[in-house]
Amino acid sequence: MGGYVYFFAKGCADGSAQMKNILGGKGANLAEMANLGIRVPPGLTISTQVCIFYSDKGSYPEGLDEEIRDNLRKIEQAVGKKFGDSENPLLLSVRSGARISMPGMMDTVLNLGLNDDTVKGLIKQTANERFAYDAYRRLIQMFGDVVLGIEREKFEKLIEEKKKSRQVKEDVQLGTQDLKELVGDFKELVKQETGQVFPEDPFRQLEMARDAVFASWNNKRAISYRQINKIPDHWGTAVNVQAMVFGNMGKDSYTGVGFTRNPATGVKELYGEYLVNAQGEDVVAGIRTPQSLSQLRRDNSRVYQELKEITERLEKHYRDVQDFEFTVEKNILYLLQTRTGKRTAQAAVKVGYDLVKENLINRQEALLRLDPAQLTQLLHPRIDPQAKVEVLARGLPASPGAATGIIVFTADRAVEVAGDGKKVILVRAETSPEDIHGMAVSQGILTSRGGMTSHAAVVARGMGKSCVAGCEAIKVDEKEEEFAVDGQVFREGDYITLDGTEGKVLKGKVPTLKPELTDEFRQIMKWANEVRTLGVRANADTPQDATLARQLGAEGIGLCRTEHMFFGEERLPFVQKVILAEDEGERTKALEKLKPMQKEDFKGILKEMEGLPVIIRLLDPPLHEFLPNREELLVEITKLKILGGNPEEIKAKEKLLQRVSDLREMNPMLGHRGCRLGITYPDVYRMQTRAVFEAAAELTIQGIKVIPEIMIPLVVEEKELAILRKDVEQIISEVMEENSIDFSYKIGTMIELPRAALCADEISRVADFFSFGTNDLTQTTFGFSRDDAEGKFLPAYIERKIFNDDPFQVLDQKGVGQLIKMGTVKGRASNPNLEIGICGEHGGEPSSVKFCHRIGLDYVSCSPYRIPIACLAAAQAKLEEAE
Amino acid sequence: MGGYVYFFAKGCADGSAQMKNILGGKGANLAEMANLGIRVPPGLTISTQVCIFYSDKGSYPEGLDEEIRDNLRKIEQAVGKKFGDSENPLLLSVRSGARISMPGMMDTVLNLGLNDDTVKGLIKQTANERFAYDAYRRLIQMFGDVVLGIEREKFEKLIEEKKKSRQVKEDVQLGTQDLKELVGDFKELVKQETGQVFPEDPFRQLEMARDAVFASWNNKRAISYRQINKIPDHWGTAVNVQAMVFGNMGKDSYTGVGFTRNPATGVKELYGEYLVNAQGEDVVAGIRTPQSLSQLRRDNSRVYQELKEITERLEKHYRDVQDFEFTVEKNILYLLQTRTGKRTAQAAVKVGYDLVKENLINRQEALLRLDPAQLTQLLHPRIDPQAKVEVLARGLPASPGAATGIIVFTADRAVEVAGDGKKVILVRAETSPEDIHGMAVSQGILTSRGGMTSHAAVVARGMGKSCVAGCEAIKVDEKEEEFAVDGQVFREGDYITLDGTEGKVLKGKVPTLKPELTDEFRQIMKWANEVRTLGVRANADTPQDATLARQLGAEGIGLCRTEHMFFGEERLPFVQKVILAEDEGERTKALEKLKPMQKEDFKGILKEMEGLPVIIRLLDPPLHEFLPNREELLVEITKLKILGGNPEEIKAKEKLLQRVSDLREMNPMLGHRGCRLGITYPDVYRMQTRAVFEAAAELTIQGIKVIPEIMIPLVVEEKELAILRKDVEQIISEVMEENSIDFSYKIGTMIELPRAALCADEISRVADFFSFGTNDLTQTTFGFSRDDAEGKFLPAYIERKIFNDDPFQVLDQKGVGQLIKMGTVKGRASNPNLEIGICGEHGGEPSSVKFCHRIGLDYVSCSPYRIPIACLAAAQAKLEEAE
Repeated sequence: MGGYVYFFAKGCADGSAQMKNILGGKGANLAEMANLGIRVPPGLTISTQVCIFYSDKGSYPEGLDEEIRDNLRKIEQAVGKKFGDSENPLLLSVRSGARISMPGMMDTVLNLGLNDDTVKGLIKQTANERFAYDAYRRLIQMFGDVVLGIEREKFEKLIEEKKKSRQVKEDVQLGTQDLKELVGDFKELVKQETGQVFPEDPFRQLEMARDAVFASWNNKRAISYRQINKIPDHWGTAVNVQAMVFGNMGKDSYTGVGFTRNPATGVKELYGEYLVNAQGEDVVAGIRTPQSLSQLRRDNSRVYQELKEITERLEKHYRDVQDFEFTVEKNILYLLQTRTGKRTAQAAVKVGYDLVKENLINRQEALLRLDPAQLTQLLHPRIDPQAKVEVLARGLPASPGAATGIIVFTADRAVEVAGDGKKVILVRAETSPEDIHGMAVSQGILTSRGGMTSHAAVVARGMGKSCVAGCEAIKVDEKEEEFAVDGQVFREGDYITLDGTEGKVLKGKVPTLKPELTDEFRQIMKWANEVRTLGVRANADTPQDATLARQLGAEGIGLCRTEHMFFGEERLPFVQKVILAEDEGERTKALEKLKPMQKEDFKGILKEMEGLPVIIRLLDPPLHEFLPNREELLVEITKLKILGGNPEEIKAKEKLLQRVSDLREMNPMLGHRGCRLGITYPDVYRMQTRAVFEAAAELTIQGIKVIPEIMIPLVVEEKELAILRKDVEQIISEVMEENSIDFSYKIGTMIELPRAALCADEISRVADFFSFGTNDLTQTTFGFSRDDAEGKFLPAYIERKIFNDDPFQVLDQKGVGQLIKMGTVKGRASNPNLEIGICGEHGGEPSSVKFCHRIGLDYVSCSPYRIPIACLAAAQAKLEEAE
Repeated sequence: MGGYVYFFAKGCADGSAQMKNILGGKGANLAEMANLGIRVPPGLTISTQVCIFYSDKGSYPEGLDEEIRDNLRKIEQAVGKKFGDSENPLLLSVRSGARISMPGMMDTVLNLGLNDDTVKGLIKQTANERFAYDAYRRLIQMFGDVVLGIEREKFEKLIEEKKKSRQVKEDVQLGTQDLKELVGDFKELVKQETGQVFPEDPFRQLEMARDAVFASWNNKRAISYRQINKIPDHWGTAVNVQAMVFGNMGKDSYTGVGFTRNPATGVKELYGEYLVNAQGEDVVAGIRTPQSLSQLRRDNSRVYQELKEITERLEKHYRDVQDFEFTVEKNILYLLQTRTGKRTAQAAVKVGYDLVKENLINRQEALLRLDPAQLTQLLHPRIDPQAKVEVLARGLPASPGAATGIIVFTADRAVEVAGDGKKVILVRAETSPEDIHGMAVSQGILTSRGGMTSHAAVVARGMGKSCVAGCEAIKVDEKEEEFAVDGQVFREGDYITLDGTEGKVLKGKVPTLKPELTDEFRQIMKWANEVRTLGVRANADTPQDATLARQLGAEGIGLCRTEHMFFGEERLPFVQKVILAEDEGERTKALEKLKPMQKEDFKGILKEMEGLPVIIRLLDPPLHEFLPNREELLVEITKLKILGGNPEEIKAKEKLLQRVSDLREMNPMLGHRGCRLGITYPDVYRMQTRAVFEAAAELTIQGIKVIPEIMIPLVVEEKELAILRKDVEQIISEVMEENSIDFSYKIGTMIELPRAALCADEISRVADFFSFGTNDLTQTTFGFSRDDAEGKFLPAYIERKIFNDDPFQVLDQKGVGQLIKMGTVKGRASNPNLEIGICGEHGGEPSSVKFCHRIGLDYVSCSPYRIPIACLAAAQAKLEEAE
């Protein structure tokens, strides 16, 4: 025996659940059930290695046919029937089964072995001629479709014609003669379509079905499923050949599917549905509505109890929720399949917790089984999965969560309408700082332009509001206050619903479910926190964010961006004055106006985070972001000039345009920003530092313990940081002296440019901490502007598998990660006390969090809603390390 | 003795020329001359270590005063006079002297030791009362200025008043009594200004003068000179105290300076000038016009011959051109200083060559002594150094060379005026592709906006034309066709002159000198080429460039940019059609139009470079660069709409605007360009590859050996290059098959993004060569957009010494260099045959070239005019390695 074929039947099997790689998931679990003494239709599994052999060479390994025949004989012995026998024929099912479940990707053929001769034997066996011919026509139909590639509809059409000619509506109303005739018609169709007759030889049928399964590994659907789900091509599929059992043998026969626990809620109950007198594909076809398994309990409690016992045993054996298929043939229960049950995030949490309480698994296993990314579902409102939805368009999933409301087109209208107690969705081509008040009162934001880092996206994430950005299918006409999509026009007052988690725009008012943090969830997060060694902090810019972050488990603030504070309605004019100031005095005056406002911000945040570190990043973006749009100004001036506007006004606007033009940059991402502003306009950083430490001093005097830390962005060279550090320390010591107090603080830098990582050994000499800004670091390491890449070429790159993931969502460990590792090692080499974290969006992405743990960072920092994700991923990383 | 003070006199000295670090350049050379038996005024040198001690502690090391007094006694013995003696007083000069010459930075005091008492001794010695009082008033004047910090003008004013009252014009016309009175007036001035009397004690004078010299190491001028010239602060200066000798003792006394060879031409001749009966500072003051040394030969051939012999001996001794100072006191010649003579590039080349021929130095020394950067002067026209110039403004030195012509303000006018046989300078706010025809006929280009990589700068460098860019002082009014600068207005027809090497705009028609490549130059380049192991190629985009490159010694083309070909007047419309095409057919048609044009370009270049490799980079810049300016379109449409323009035209323009807007990017440098276009618009690269290889095939058939190599830009990931390589190879094999020929070629990539260097081990698996694109690599490693940084914050960074150099001009070895090293090591690790070069602008910068040699690159590639620089630097790197 070459070891390519594995036999199984109740009580004995060549394989086991451990052998998924060569038997596929279905085959391995069938073998396992057989070993457990559970009744399964006897069968054989042709291993995945044969599939690979066949894929590579187009032929089969020597001796395969013999192996198949030998094992077929065992099946014949087990069921007491003979394949191709005209008296007592064995019928077979042929199913694919890859290493992991690929639903709908592979095709099934039932009733294999029937022909004009053996059908008579089936009639004898069952004493049911109609059943036999129905089985025969089903074989030809499935075989024609799956093996011969004839369109399914062509068979359906023949059935429809037959029903019409018999003036009946349902398949079951067709009689034996009708089915017999259909067998003939189907065979004729096969001949017409393929030029070959339907193969009457059962062994030929089996060969062809096997070939078709292996060939289907490389069909388009399968390849694309593998691409999407990142399944390697070399895994291959197995083929499972089993004796047929029939759920359509009468009122005492059923077919059904189920779960050992409710997959939506996680509640422990036998959950599923079944059909009486039906075959599996009838469930799929949806012709009859299946009944709940609770009905089976009432109708046939013996079978129900047996099913319950067996599946509970399976759950205990596998130590996880099972998703199973079964057939009852004349009151005899056969299990056809069992596998780990898919579940919602809610169910996953409850099941994980319950299994621990039931002593089926330990806490570590519970933590490792959860998908951290799935937790997002628990933290934001979501579309009711029961709801019927009409998707109007797809955009970028810029900020997660579901939101419903009536459309408004301006920030001011948003405020008015929301003021009337209505829920609104703000729809704009793109948002700008002037829209913030409108965004704040909206349920969600929809823009037709801009990427994952557009103003709308960043602000919405910061506010924890749902946002779909860059939804180009939506044509927003801001003047007319309407948008058109796919031929439909929407105006103020119309309802839409956003799914920011998926990036979908839905028509009308779709019901949403509120997030709820269950006790099980809290308990599991507690376990995760006990396990993990990586710290988790939050990116938070406001006291509200800070409160939320603390509730969700943040151990500090890893990134507080001060520029968002500059965009506030009552602040922007002063910010603009700072920028446009013609002399030092004017600038100082404007900065003096801003300082108390910034101080209040910092006081709120520091107070919320009492006892925890708060890293405050000084001003980062280029100055022109705070100024009016250059193009709009240009058009305005052109208009004013032609229409003879007030010369004073024109002159003023031209002066403003001049300044905006002076500040304009070809590539603002690589321009005059971050610490470069700190070097050239030192007053801004000084004002910000003063605001932070005056706030800290006041709180300290009130007896509140604060730990403020100053972070200087965009450093590439030790001297930059040394100069600014000196400046900041000067201010701090002034403030401390003025208030006669003393408290500890840190001064550090973001490592967000390749040179900073490359020269980390020098920079760390003047830094107390490093925080890797992985958004910018990804941009410069790849040379990708996120705003441009995500809308233009990145989708093509992912589609063509040049990248497995969007590097802005999943940290590029190979390139960017190499710099992070280098920066960490070099940084610690010259400053062993250096504290190191990351604060890009990757800080809340599971695989990236695990990477951070592995390379020994001290913490990750992410948006508040991602904290549980980061905590769980960090715990998993610790556990995986131990393994 | 503490070793702080070093004595010297003819025939004996404590120091030598080797001791520049502690004696300073002047002191070491005085000691050396003394040792050689050359007559120098006896003296002592206080070492640079004392300066550092004084700078650090504000006091002097113990025993210093004693050491000075001991050595002073030796001077007294050598000259037979006594310091402070009223009968036979010794007078001293005090001069600073740092390790390297810092002309004009340090101050000198002469005649030290005079007071009301000793002046009488001087009268006795010289029997010349007028001379004695003149010496006295000079002492007070210099001492007052240099040591006491009294403004020089105040003394001059007193002299002027005296001359007025005596009704004379020249200083020499003042009599003894006048000078005596001036001594009194000067002392009064000192008292008024400082509140202290002039120190009569000679030892106090000496102490104060010494302190002043040491203090002057940290005066503003000195600090700023050190910053500019990168001289470390810790070097310090020495103080040289010497017995006075007087060139103003009558008709048989002189003072003069000279060179052993002509510093402008390099011709071997005693070259210099002198004044009869004068002191050194009279030459500086410019009151009398000095005479040429050839006059001395006629007037006093004995002294002349002695000077000639001594200086020739010095040249032989030092084995280099000497720049010397001398004084003749009553027919006795004293050498006051000798040092290596500064020289022009022309002279440097000739001297180097001649010294080798004279067997004074060997070829290696000749090569090592040349400053590669200086060679630029030889390769471009330059401003006649004799010419009087008025600098109107300074901009960026965007493309070297000098050019004179009349101003024109549009490309079309440039063509018209140049067509009349006139030389023109094109002046624009900034240039765009539509100006190319005008640039081509101009002598030089001046723009008021844009940086070192602006369109004007890049195209001008490519064309080898002088260009001053980003000259913001010039306010160009394109509508009025005039520019204003500093209150003056210039219009078409006015002459200006550009110095693109220095970035200066000069008024009027300034004479320029044509470059000439002398035989000596060719010979030296030959020596360099024999020595160097690093290859040198050219960046060249046209057959003209290629010819020039080959003439200047290029061993191939390292970078041929294909996009410049797209900007041609007759091509741009088709390029725009490719971009704006609404369907595949339209695009294909436009590409078909472009192909023959590109093919001709490539044919020309490949033919020029017969037998040498030509690396052709496929399209790199973002597509919108080929489209009209978005803002101009916006304004145009606004105008048309208000003024009721043709609706069809408005619609067409709005459509164009839409497309331009679609292609617009936030950060084009990091956007949809390079191989990203190759992936998403594969037809463009296919067309270009076909054009290259059809050209290569035709030439091969003609019997011309061509070596085309395809370079894919902006790769970050192996798969990108693998996909495009396959595409390119497909086209190549098609073309070879169509033409039934075969020739070797290479396919490689630019490494110009950090990730490419980090993942070089993977990328090199599918690359035949790497070329480091250091311009882009610098941008992304630093996160600096060159266009923005050079105009905005980079100057401040260099001024504040955060960076020593502009990293776009001098390769940042610490950061960017680390990536280049990493990319080289990793690349070769997985592909040992990988050929590696660099093709950024750094390829022609000496220190960067040397770095490339040290890390083992195969070649550098630079603009044609920089090839000699690169060759020399490469030779020096090889020689320095051997040392």
